[in-house]
Amino acid sequence: MLVIGERINGMFKEVRRAIEAQDKAAVQRLAREELEAGANVLDVNLGPAQVEPLPALRWLVEAIREVTKAPLAIDTTKADLMEEGLRLAGPGSFLNSSTGQEEKLRLFLPLAAKYDASLIALTIDEKGVPADSSGRTEIGLRIVAAASEAGLDPGRLYIDPVILPVRFTQPNPGHVLGALREVRLLCDPPPKTVLGLSNVSQGSSLRELINRTFLVMALGAGLDAAIVDPLDRPLMEAMITAELLLNRHIYCDDFLKAYRAGAG
Amino acid sequence: MLVIGERINGMFKEVRRAIEAQDKAAVQRLAREELEAGANVLDVNLGPAQVEPLPALRWLVEAIREVTKAPLAIDTTKADLMEEGLRLAGPGSFLNSSTGQEEKLRLFLPLAAKYDASLIALTIDEKGVPADSSGRTEIGLRIVAAASEAGLDPGRLYIDPVILPVRFTQPNPGHVLGALREVRLLCDPPPKTVLGLSNVSQGSSLRELINRTFLVMALGAGLDAAIVDPLDRPLMEAMITAELLLNRHIYCDDFLKAYRAGAG
Repeated sequence: MLVIGERINGMFKEVRRAIEAQDKAAVQRLAREELEAGANVLDVNLGPAQVEPLPALRWLVEAIREVTKAPLAIDTTKADLMEEGLRLAGPGSFLNSSTGQEEKLRLFLPLAAKYDASLIALTIDEKGVPADSSGRTEIGLRIVAAASEAGLDPGRLYIDPVILPVRFTQPNPGHVLGALREVRLLCDPPPKTVLGLSNVSQGSSLRELINRTFLVMALGAGLDAAIVDPLDRPLMEAMITAELLLNRHIYCDDFLKAYRAGAG
Repeated sequence: MLVIGERINGMFKEVRRAIEAQDKAAVQRLAREELEAGANVLDVNLGPAQVEPLPALRWLVEAIREVTKAPLAIDTTKADLMEEGLRLAGPGSFLNSSTGQEEKLRLFLPLAAKYDASLIALTIDEKGVPADSSGRTEIGLRIVAAASEAGLDPGRLYIDPVILPVRFTQPNPGHVLGALREVRLLCDPPPKTVLGLSNVSQGSSLRELINRTFLVMALGAGLDAAIVDPLDRPLMEAMITAELLLNRHIYCDDFLKAYRAGAG
């Protein structure tokens, strides 16, 4: 699974403080920690930090780029910020995220092409998040069609079927699992799929248990990537084990260690 | 999920000793512990205990029956033992197990009917365990047809697609997940499905992690029942959480406790 580290996000208090104080060392330490723990991509989001967004994002991306060439996922809904982030982060970045709304796709698909980026697109349209799996799948197929018209390589399109908190809408996780399966079944070649995992446990008491349990089920349904906390060790162990059971890396008795050593 | 407790099995050293020594207290303690930890059914298997099988099974079932009326799963391949076990355990028991071989079904289906028992049937035929999911599904469908002809209520038929150790055959867990989905898709009404879970981690170092990860994926694929160690607390928590996410019991913040209190 492609692990997109979620920690460089201004919604976390210490990151918000680091962004506001331009504390480069704090951000760079976090980037290194995420990568060492297994992140393949680093999500970058200013969150609610009280800053001028454009210079703050520039500072943040450049601070991270001083310590790693790993792909970054520029996480914003604003086109100007997105473009500047993708430009500074360089080719191989992730645009996080578009939705299935036509105007969003018209805005973001060309940006992905221009900066050689992968595109994450949520199955949301003018009417919001569909109440079931087939509504999600339908929007997913519209996104696949638009991306194909725009010439985006299907391997660089990540459909996100939008997991909502189980606490507030308990049928939702099942619909997301259904959509993960359906999107893969109905497209040839299938797009990749991704989830912003931690949303499933928003407001819950046993967040880590819920996160890793849902991640394992989603992997069983074919999930390719997830935005997660790579510093959550039991989560990463559950992921590695699920991938082992799905025959995605070779068995050895010490498979956790082997995976972490890059032998996985 | 229907939890079939696996612990009363002579393959465990202390159980073997209890059976050989007719240590009733030890067996009864284990039965109580499994039920308190969440088992709905208790599997009963003499294993390699050095005893006369028929009187030993009689003793074992009667010892358990002194402390609980919970359904028992009589776990043997021998027809005479099976019949005596089902007779003593009473209506609502489980016959564990038949295979898809005609001669086995001809032997065990009438026994299930005679003693008002549910039937667990492995997707194995004359050629052994199929190498892929569709081979399992095909045998599963033959079992469903035979059970229907014999008049067994489809809700009392449990198809077991045979999980093999991931250590020895790594594509196997994926085939089992596929078969779990296919059997449900292709039968109306679908039979129930069951797994002898711990086999997946046979010979592995990280057995509990492998067991609970595969159980969660199997639940996501529609699994109805499993033969597990209910005393493995993280396993039971993963199961409860997976069922919560599949909307099988009502959300509350303290859902583990609520489930255990029977409110799940």
